[in-house]
Amino acid sequence: MARWGGQAHPAMQVPGPSLREAASMYGTAVAVFLVILVAALQGSTPPESPFPYHIPLDPEGTLELSWNVSYVQETVHFQLLVRELKAGVLFGMSDRGELENADLAVLWTDGDSAYFGDAWSDQKGQIHLDSQQDYQLLRAQRTPEGLSLLFKRPFGTCDPKDYFIEDGTVHLVYGILEEPVRSLEAINTSGLQTGLQRVQLLKPNISVPALPADLQTMEIRAPDILVPGQETTYWCYITELPEGFSRHHIVMYEPIVTAGNEALVHHMEVFQCAAEFESFPAFSGPCDSKMKPERLNYCRHVLAAWALGAKAFYYPEEAGLAFGGPGSSRFLRLEVHYHNPLMITGRRDSSGIRLYYTATLRRFDAGIMELGLVYTPVMAIPPQEPAFVLTGYCTDKCTQLALPPSGIHIFASQLHTHLTGRKVVTVLARGGREREVVNRDDHYSPHFQEIRMLKKVVSVLPGDVLITSCTYNTEDRKLATVGGFGILEEMCVNYLHYYPQTQLELCKSAVDPGFLQKYFHLVNRFDSEQVCTCPQATVPEQFASVPWNSFNRQVLRALYGFAPISMHCNKSSAVRFQGEWNLQPLPEITSKLEEPAPHCPPGRGQSPVGPTVVSIGGGKG
Amino acid sequence: MARWGGQAHPAMQVPGPSLREAASMYGTAVAVFLVILVAALQGSTPPESPFPYHIPLDPEGTLELSWNVSYVQETVHFQLLVRELKAGVLFGMSDRGELENADLAVLWTDGDSAYFGDAWSDQKGQIHLDSQQDYQLLRAQRTPEGLSLLFKRPFGTCDPKDYFIEDGTVHLVYGILEEPVRSLEAINTSGLQTGLQRVQLLKPNISVPALPADLQTMEIRAPDILVPGQETTYWCYITELPEGFSRHHIVMYEPIVTAGNEALVHHMEVFQCAAEFESFPAFSGPCDSKMKPERLNYCRHVLAAWALGAKAFYYPEEAGLAFGGPGSSRFLRLEVHYHNPLMITGRRDSSGIRLYYTATLRRFDAGIMELGLVYTPVMAIPPQEPAFVLTGYCTDKCTQLALPPSGIHIFASQLHTHLTGRKVVTVLARGGREREVVNRDDHYSPHFQEIRMLKKVVSVLPGDVLITSCTYNTEDRKLATVGGFGILEEMCVNYLHYYPQTQLELCKSAVDPGFLQKYFHLVNRFDSEQVCTCPQATVPEQFASVPWNSFNRQVLRALYGFAPISMHCNKSSAVRFQGEWNLQPLPEITSKLEEPAPHCPPGRGQSPVGPTVVSIGGGKG
Repeated sequence: MARWGGQAHPAMQVPGPSLREAASMYGTAVAVFLVILVAALQGSTPPESPFPYHIPLDPEGTLELSWNVSYVQETVHFQLLVRELKAGVLFGMSDRGELENADLAVLWTDGDSAYFGDAWSDQKGQIHLDSQQDYQLLRAQRTPEGLSLLFKRPFGTCDPKDYFIEDGTVHLVYGILEEPVRSLEAINTSGLQTGLQRVQLLKPNISVPALPADLQTMEIRAPDILVPGQETTYWCYITELPEGFSRHHIVMYEPIVTAGNEALVHHMEVFQCAAEFESFPAFSGPCDSKMKPERLNYCRHVLAAWALGAKAFYYPEEAGLAFGGPGSSRFLRLEVHYHNPLMITGRRDSSGIRLYYTATLRRFDAGIMELGLVYTPVMAIPPQEPAFVLTGYCTDKCTQLALPPSGIHIFASQLHTHLTGRKVVTVLARGGREREVVNRDDHYSPHFQEIRMLKKVVSVLPGDVLITSCTYNTEDRKLATVGGFGILEEMCVNYLHYYPQTQLELCKSAVDPGFLQKYFHLVNRFDSEQVCTCPQATVPEQFASVPWNSFNRQVLRALYGFAPISMHCNKSSAVRFQGEWNLQPLPEITSKLEEPAPHCPPGRGQSPVGPTVVSIGGGKG
Repeated sequence: MARWGGQAHPAMQVPGPSLREAASMYGTAVAVFLVILVAALQGSTPPESPFPYHIPLDPEGTLELSWNVSYVQETVHFQLLVRELKAGVLFGMSDRGELENADLAVLWTDGDSAYFGDAWSDQKGQIHLDSQQDYQLLRAQRTPEGLSLLFKRPFGTCDPKDYFIEDGTVHLVYGILEEPVRSLEAINTSGLQTGLQRVQLLKPNISVPALPADLQTMEIRAPDILVPGQETTYWCYITELPEGFSRHHIVMYEPIVTAGNEALVHHMEVFQCAAEFESFPAFSGPCDSKMKPERLNYCRHVLAAWALGAKAFYYPEEAGLAFGGPGSSRFLRLEVHYHNPLMITGRRDSSGIRLYYTATLRRFDAGIMELGLVYTPVMAIPPQEPAFVLTGYCTDKCTQLALPPSGIHIFASQLHTHLTGRKVVTVLARGGREREVVNRDDHYSPHFQEIRMLKKVVSVLPGDVLITSCTYNTEDRKLATVGGFGILEEMCVNYLHYYPQTQLELCKSAVDPGFLQKYFHLVNRFDSEQVCTCPQATVPEQFASVPWNSFNRQVLRALYGFAPISMHCNKSSAVRFQGEWNLQPLPEITSKLEEPAPHCPPGRGQSPVGPTVVSIGGGKG
């Protein structure tokens, strides 16, 4: 047994000669318990409320995070369960899940004492103690499952080395210390087993709506399939509603994850197939299988979506999502994304989604509306751009025509881009002034698209404007990335979930194609005719031949911020509302909302300035 | 006598009923003495060094500021002499001399006690106490001349309400409280007598070079003139060197200001006339007088320049400015700018500059080189721009050709723009990377142009690039502002003072005119032919007809950041070095210097959080 029975030691002390020995012994010490010394608690009592949210951090499930959120205190309480403690663990957050430039809480031992501290990693992955200690350890406890660490962190700390916990995606990172370290500064994340997990940390704090008495459930689950031993699998499974299943309202749904597969099932969606087809062939297999019937591509109408870390999804009490009945298909497609980086084989799975529905239709049908950019190559991103912004508009003219006088109420939103998307935001403007954010994700990842309940329902009135902006990173591309359906093309979409349902399904824009041709002419005038502006050239071909110097980049940006737009103000993807929708002026915005910024916590500067020394007593080693 | 004999009072106390009475009495109380209470001193001892710099703040000279600078402590010590104290005084700094959004030290009385505090004014001029007290009062003392306040301020405080004291121009502001106030928050600057004074606060800390034994002096002074009773006068006076005056080196010069006129004489310059003319007519009168001989416009070669707050100017020990001898004119022009906002009449003045020179020529002649933009309308600023940047280049090709292998050494610099200039900076780049700032003024004012010694001599080698950027504010203009000589046109110039003198007098650039015509074509293509691109149209006419929408603004900015340039790499304003200077590529810069930012002082947060209470004892009231 390593010498855990010490008293308080000065932090960063030089280890004794028995480090090596202690290290190897420590490496096998699974059960330990920690006694926290003076500085740690500071009079804070651990919250009595349970932790409603849970997520496994690593694929093996040895690190399990639970958390809750206090919007009053602007603080997150974390409970990290470490199932097999070795010499320590790193947990934290970073901009996009990298272990460099990360904001970290570190538990480590030098073989003698154990320490907990707020730290950060530099751009080389080197760990440093933070001058301001904002991760605050509240309790460390031995439990039958492993070591449980309870600590808290304010959303914002105003320490420039710290991550600002915002709405939207948060990239959690972890690392496992296998052997004791001389000091915190001796740790470099590049030498550790590390990983990331994306999650919406700031879950909305909304009360659960009342459920009807005649609630029924239906499980849409994978049929005990064998999960392939490869990193990424999208599994497709076709099922159907009972014959004669009448019109119902889905009022809630929740995930069903096969026990033991919690770290494997990344996200799941249930789609309804198109009503145009009488029937769909049965199928259960990878979605990219050559055996998959072509017709399954017509099963794209979202009924439910879940992603890792999310809990049940509730519709507002006044609304439900209609399914069943005449005019809709009986066929449903379940899609399950298995994320299996350890390439585990032989694992069986029956995960899926449980729909809660009622025959007593609620007052309003819920609807889904698509905002953002039209899928067209005229909207393009030059290559090698770290943060290029494209913006799609839903204009006052369209909302005036299509929305009821009392407006619509948005309660959830799903953001969507392809691979180069990094941020997405939709803002509502009224009378030329930005009024509120509908949904914002400044750490958006195309690998983590979930339907998110809004913290606050947003009402949109006729005449309002909805502005959706996507920020793209094309630093790894050699040619321009144009808009389109292909995975290497881009999209900028916000699927709004709202009620009461209207005829408006699509409210999107793109730059006027004539103005884009003026741009290509201009490029030629400055760069000796490299872009073919002849009739047979396609827009992607034209973009591919633009020489991407600073001028052509900036002028394209200026064009998108100035040129008139074509609007898609559509009842369905093909049917427009009546009116003139070409060469529309860009909405004029005279006042913008401020960017989100952290509130510095009032208790700032009173937290301990060094790491907390933790004395570890003997257990069964 | 007002009730000054109080003890320490809580700050912000409600005044007694005798406020009115006390106020009027206080108003006449000229001699007072102050005893500083506990919180003020905090163990700091006032610096024993004297205050080398002095400046009158108001035109009547009732407020006189002295200061010194510690670069080690990054602190300025101020000594403010208040000649006729009424109910208090405001002193501070703001971005461009406005009394709104100013960072202020305030001495005030409520008729009972007196207080000193760090405060700030909001955008309406309303005063608020600062949450962090960074102006620290060290001593308040009654002297025969008036009340003397000694206080200090770090350069940067990291308090967002505070001004960051940087190199270059600082706009000092003041206000005079005529009557006691209930509290600090009761003060609004709009109701006070206020004003501004521009000064270089952070004077370079350079040791005085040794002067030669055979030093001679010559005074170039106004001939006891009667200062006109108008706000602004530029006085021109022609004088001449003795017949047969041989070649000498000016090694130093200093101002001579007629006693009593310290607040009136704003700046002075001595110019040498052009050698082309045998003689120049005598003249002493306003420079804009119709009586001024036309030929005096040829007296523009700067020999010496002084502005308010500056002290003597020393050449480096190895160099001197040559004057006299064959090939140079014997005629000199003195220009004195009188700033007389009180329109004082009957004042006589003999101010001028005293030149210190030697017949023993130093090793190197000093030279003056002009960097920045060519005076041409092709460089233009759209109207209504808050901060539009134009950049002029001195390219590697020119320095390669014109500079000696061991380079040149810049020791001083004078920045120059016309009325819309707000910032000027010159940066040296080597091998595509910005290396150091030659001179920067982020609070530049066209009304305060002085020759400034550099804090550190900058050496320029053949192949180096010098980049001069000017930021303009054209919010008050309706049409584009083009480059040119006119006062309503713009310039972007840095006059470098350096040694050893080379043939290179001018190293400036402008956008290629052909690319500008492409820009006008492009504007027409997007905006239906409003700009005449016909041969008879002049560039100013073309700029005047551009419709200034966001696109045309951004594309002009992109053009200036991309299009090739025409270089003026000239021996004199008309003679170019041999080589191809048209259609030159813009220098490529791969790494930029960081913007200056304040170091937060280490003692931060330990300063008192409220105002310092000051007890005022009786004097002769």
